[in-house]
Amino acid sequence: MAIRTNDPTQLFAAAAGGDRGALARLLSLVERGGNDAREVARLASPHTGRGYVVGITGAPGAGKSTLTSAVIADLRARGARVGVLAIDPSSPYTGGAILGDRVRMQDHAHDEKVYIRSMATRGHLGGLSLATSEAIRLLDATGHDWVIVETVGVGQVEVEIAGKADSTVVVVNPGWGDAVQANKAGLLEIADVFAINKADRDGVDATRRDLQAMLELTEFAEDEWQPTILTTIATTGQGVIELVNAVLAHRTSAETSGELTRRRELRRREELREIVERRLELRARELCQGAQWDALEAQVMSGARDPWSAADEMLRGISA
Amino acid sequence: MAIRTNDPTQLFAAAAGGDRGALARLLSLVERGGNDAREVARLASPHTGRGYVVGITGAPGAGKSTLTSAVIADLRARGARVGVLAIDPSSPYTGGAILGDRVRMQDHAHDEKVYIRSMATRGHLGGLSLATSEAIRLLDATGHDWVIVETVGVGQVEVEIAGKADSTVVVVNPGWGDAVQANKAGLLEIADVFAINKADRDGVDATRRDLQAMLELTEFAEDEWQPTILTTIATTGQGVIELVNAVLAHRTSAETSGELTRRRELRRREELREIVERRLELRARELCQGAQWDALEAQVMSGARDPWSAADEMLRGISA
Repeated sequence: MAIRTNDPTQLFAAAAGGDRGALARLLSLVERGGNDAREVARLASPHTGRGYVVGITGAPGAGKSTLTSAVIADLRARGARVGVLAIDPSSPYTGGAILGDRVRMQDHAHDEKVYIRSMATRGHLGGLSLATSEAIRLLDATGHDWVIVETVGVGQVEVEIAGKADSTVVVVNPGWGDAVQANKAGLLEIADVFAINKADRDGVDATRRDLQAMLELTEFAEDEWQPTILTTIATTGQGVIELVNAVLAHRTSAETSGELTRRRELRRREELREIVERRLELRARELCQGAQWDALEAQVMSGARDPWSAADEMLRGISA
Repeated sequence: MAIRTNDPTQLFAAAAGGDRGALARLLSLVERGGNDAREVARLASPHTGRGYVVGITGAPGAGKSTLTSAVIADLRARGARVGVLAIDPSSPYTGGAILGDRVRMQDHAHDEKVYIRSMATRGHLGGLSLATSEAIRLLDATGHDWVIVETVGVGQVEVEIAGKADSTVVVVNPGWGDAVQANKAGLLEIADVFAINKADRDGVDATRRDLQAMLELTEFAEDEWQPTILTTIATTGQGVIELVNAVLAHRTSAETSGELTRRRELRRREELREIVERRLELRARELCQGAQWDALEAQVMSGARDPWSAADEMLRGISA
């Protein structure tokens, strides 16, 4: 029987035991931010570090969702429990529903060992980036061996979100277009594995040469991972086992070299900074409203008062 | 004899009396931000509102500096005292020196009634946008009838800075290129006057038709100013009197309709918000350093402590 509480402690205990309804409600608390999100983070923190986070990103239409679905199937065949965050920074919709072309992932809707959640921009008091960090932590702490973070696009936010992964797969297509061309440097920076998906189309060899030429221009340290380039046809599953093996090879390399520890440490530091910044922003928003603010603002707008002394008066509360 | 103090009160009195060295030192205080900048704003505020602020913006190479120099000459011929802020958000250099292709403005270097200052990104604790607001206020309060703010480019920052003007002149060229094409909507939003400069080149009529077509697609309210389109040849001074007259016509319209009051009120409100935001940012930067921060950060990075409770501890000082 589904539990009917909103108490984070009870929900966390239930979710850790495999209750998907409790997990869904915890993720909603995390998305909303505020005190409950903080409490969820406090509960989850001691249980993290076992799950391995894989980012899958690439331009719209590259076939990321289909590939993600195939990767889930492979990880399930290997006995793993899988959590998936499907993130679309450009969409205002969030919550349990699967977004747009992600219906492919519905294949796993009845598998108790796969949990899929879509996240978008709406209603994240703490911002999408912070909400993603918290959701990853929660999936990790509730026994998901793999957490896949799928993002659409290769812009600033997507790169930021990809930065939360232990391994990042960048999905491109044969003859990748001008849109991606401009972002090559950014992709190279985040990619641990390149998957040339839709490899049954023309231009696979040219794309592979193109990627190899990019890598040859890059200087790698002696024990540094050099991105793997491989081909996949997500619709048939071709190359998916090799893709998961490439991610496992990167994982082993990163564990051995200490890179994984370093990445995770930097991520935790980044998250701490995000939280501090975000809470100050919220504090500013609180300060810039209400009767006292309106009165000061009116004085500043009319020119009766200079803005610095008005700001001083409003900020007296944070001078400590 | 030049005064040798850094006391804002003495410097302000001297600058208001026409001492250019004192004005230069006040502008440096304003650029640096902090307590002195606040004190300068407090001193200047009661004396503002008489100067009229004109923004001159446009793509690099459009001839803005030459045009600005010609506008200064025309305003001087009309007996006005003129202050100029030459702003380049992409340049790291700031201070008294004239930037790159702005040497044209050196024509006015020996005119006691013209004060020219270049501002760039470096060393603005309060950000370039805020420093510009403060510098405009100071030039206004020290008896400059006109304050010209010249910005390079048409990106986000430039549009933001143009928003600080009472009237904005957008400088384009015949056959304006694709770079500007993409920003047409943004230009239309900020332009009160379009100057097609280098009008001795081919393509003036096409550019004029292009601008007119843009304006025809825009709905204007009955008493709303519709941007003037005119042609100039800055190097010969052709069209410059008409340009200044167009700005004066916009000024009269904005004064009559109440638009000028409204713009200035919104600007003061925006500045207040910028100050509040900026001071919270500085507070965050203060909090995120020092021994206590380092210890907390190390705990978070190692996973020994969750980031939310660490943030709580750091932010205790602002909970009031």
